[in-house]
Amino acid sequence: MKLELARVVRGTGRLGVLRGLGRTAQHSLEVPGCLLYTHLGAVPHLTQDTLHTLSSLPSVTQVTLSNIAEHQEVLEEFKDGFRKFAGLHDTLLYCSLHDSAAPCPTGYTTNKTVSVWGSGGRIELTVAKFMALQKAVQPDWYQSMADGETWQNNTSRKRVRKSVDRTLAHLDECLLAHQNSQELEGVEVFGVVEGGDIPEERVRSARETAKRPVAGFCLDGLQTGSMDQALRTQLIAAVTKELPEEKPRLLQGVGRPDEVLACVEVGVDLFESFFPFQVTERGCALCFSFNISLDPERAVLELNEDERDTAGETQHNGDVSLDDQTRMTSFEMNLKDKRYHDDFRPLVEGCGCYCCKNHQRAYLHHLLVTNELLAGVLLTIHNTAHYQGFFSALREAVAGDKLDILRRRVLRERKE
Amino acid sequence: MKLELARVVRGTGRLGVLRGLGRTAQHSLEVPGCLLYTHLGAVPHLTQDTLHTLSSLPSVTQVTLSNIAEHQEVLEEFKDGFRKFAGLHDTLLYCSLHDSAAPCPTGYTTNKTVSVWGSGGRIELTVAKFMALQKAVQPDWYQSMADGETWQNNTSRKRVRKSVDRTLAHLDECLLAHQNSQELEGVEVFGVVEGGDIPEERVRSARETAKRPVAGFCLDGLQTGSMDQALRTQLIAAVTKELPEEKPRLLQGVGRPDEVLACVEVGVDLFESFFPFQVTERGCALCFSFNISLDPERAVLELNEDERDTAGETQHNGDVSLDDQTRMTSFEMNLKDKRYHDDFRPLVEGCGCYCCKNHQRAYLHHLLVTNELLAGVLLTIHNTAHYQGFFSALREAVAGDKLDILRRRVLRERKE
Repeated sequence: MKLELARVVRGTGRLGVLRGLGRTAQHSLEVPGCLLYTHLGAVPHLTQDTLHTLSSLPSVTQVTLSNIAEHQEVLEEFKDGFRKFAGLHDTLLYCSLHDSAAPCPTGYTTNKTVSVWGSGGRIELTVAKFMALQKAVQPDWYQSMADGETWQNNTSRKRVRKSVDRTLAHLDECLLAHQNSQELEGVEVFGVVEGGDIPEERVRSARETAKRPVAGFCLDGLQTGSMDQALRTQLIAAVTKELPEEKPRLLQGVGRPDEVLACVEVGVDLFESFFPFQVTERGCALCFSFNISLDPERAVLELNEDERDTAGETQHNGDVSLDDQTRMTSFEMNLKDKRYHDDFRPLVEGCGCYCCKNHQRAYLHHLLVTNELLAGVLLTIHNTAHYQGFFSALREAVAGDKLDILRRRVLRERKE
Repeated sequence: MKLELARVVRGTGRLGVLRGLGRTAQHSLEVPGCLLYTHLGAVPHLTQDTLHTLSSLPSVTQVTLSNIAEHQEVLEEFKDGFRKFAGLHDTLLYCSLHDSAAPCPTGYTTNKTVSVWGSGGRIELTVAKFMALQKAVQPDWYQSMADGETWQNNTSRKRVRKSVDRTLAHLDECLLAHQNSQELEGVEVFGVVEGGDIPEERVRSARETAKRPVAGFCLDGLQTGSMDQALRTQLIAAVTKELPEEKPRLLQGVGRPDEVLACVEVGVDLFESFFPFQVTERGCALCFSFNISLDPERAVLELNEDERDTAGETQHNGDVSLDDQTRMTSFEMNLKDKRYHDDFRPLVEGCGCYCCKNHQRAYLHHLLVTNELLAGVLLTIHNTAHYQGFFSALREAVAGDKLDILRRRVLRERKE
């Protein structure tokens, strides 16, 4: 895996292509970009056929051990890896530890283990079990085992230091087991940068991880709800300065468009895409604007103030908590709202997704209030397409020095 | 609408084609056959694109007023009918009163009204409101308003007589309103035959309904759980003798393969297809055999006794109740069962549906135990395909005098 950067501008992000992906090294992924999210081993609610009606999907699908660990025996018996088990075709697999859409309980990590929570409860992973799982899953790349329990406000400096030490020790053990395994030949490992909200520990974690033979870096413990955006960007800036330019940086647990924008500016390349899934789960549709090609006058007209709710704005103040993740944000519309019951427009005018081309808000409202599962199917299609469209616009903005315009468009500031 | 019969044999059913369907009279439907079921205004969980990956779908989709009545104002404002509102393409619409998968509370009919139950509670329909709804829905054919509250064991003779009288009065009122309506030109009406479990009332209802200008007949009050199969076939035989040969007979509330077979033999042409939906809802997959082309030896081998559970067999004894409808039958396998967690076979060997071609039982088991909605999507695909396949085999059996073989196959009797 190699990141070919087309453009690196301090303060406006990195533009490039991650090449040589997969065991055959034939795949690539544009950055800034996002991975395709799966929940419980499926792109939520979609058959692979329906999924592939979406154009320009990411070439990499993320699966998480919290969803998979309880299937270890079945996968070992199956022998052909998780991609085939789940019927996922034509995609690279990236295997991470936790599911960012389902924060796991804390207090269960030890010096030698971390725990993941599946549908049947907690599963404790040693490095040996973690690596056995990777052999059963057969991903193209995976995140090394890590102790990421530092995101709570009251985490002590001592606990943060311990998390960095443990995560480095896990990485060394993983790499050793990896190098001795034939099954994992050609598979790549991402090291995990921890350090909570302490800049020196973040820098130490980054420097030490960068010394190891890793293909890229996961930035952990910075998820939405754990700290405010100013502190997050400051910490990420301190970290990315320590990391080699040619290796990708994947930020875990951040998905809101405004936060994505801020993190791209300080050198993040890759994001997860659990955010559109969360939006779908609460019966909402992404409707924020990201069209930077519009002339400014039309753009202002395009912003239908009344379409969007403002529930999410409160997240900008200092009072953050993980609960916020399930709250509606200002980037979406709540289709359960009575006002949509006779709204015969598509979710987003001009959107080319299957849902917007075939259905109206009133029908989605009906499906949602009657709890018909097709609502989740159609919203997944739209929200995935919309989020991918945002990332496409993001790359265009980095290329054309238009991140400011994009930010204003996304946040709908009228002060142009 | 006209039923062209290719073959009518007493005791082996009617084979034919229902021609001249729809306002343009260009569509047709083979009988014995079934309608495409919708729940809450959608083929459960499927986008129209996914639905149309299934081959040989029925040309007629059933929608029910219980799912639609609360949208009356929205549909009147929308103006283009329910087919377009729900994004259903290329299908004829048949509008019935109740949803056979959701039995409604009794005790709410009066001389002038019947009630349907939507997600927002009870909606009382007069003939005027009923007909206004038909104008808003714009179906190709619809069931006339009827009082069907006669399926309970303790219904008195007097109540049954009243139900027949009321239903005929409703029909006359509906037909009058229909003939005076320009919007309903070209739309056809099915009269409803009531009469509970009293043969004389069944005959009276059939004779009187047949005198009216209806396009076909709905047989109501005979649903699974209301009476045993012997009584049902006896009543249906008495009714169909009174009905004109060239008009179709649609039986409501019966969907189990064994019951369908018995009812076809006494002259029923059309069925609803709520049964595969119920199977899907309980996390099961249809797996009964209906292949009558197999040579007998292979057929016996094909029947994997261990695949199927026997929960439904108890329905054959006299102790019937509507609760039985939600119980598992012997025609399906329960994929939540632990035994499937490492079963890497398709749901049904040789099945050509998307689910069976792409996924294994172990993956479906995983999706079901973790409550991922994709399970419902994939099961709907398989169960719909399997049920359509059964009806196709049923027509083949009527054509070739092989109903006995088909019955043995479906019931898996080994005494050939």
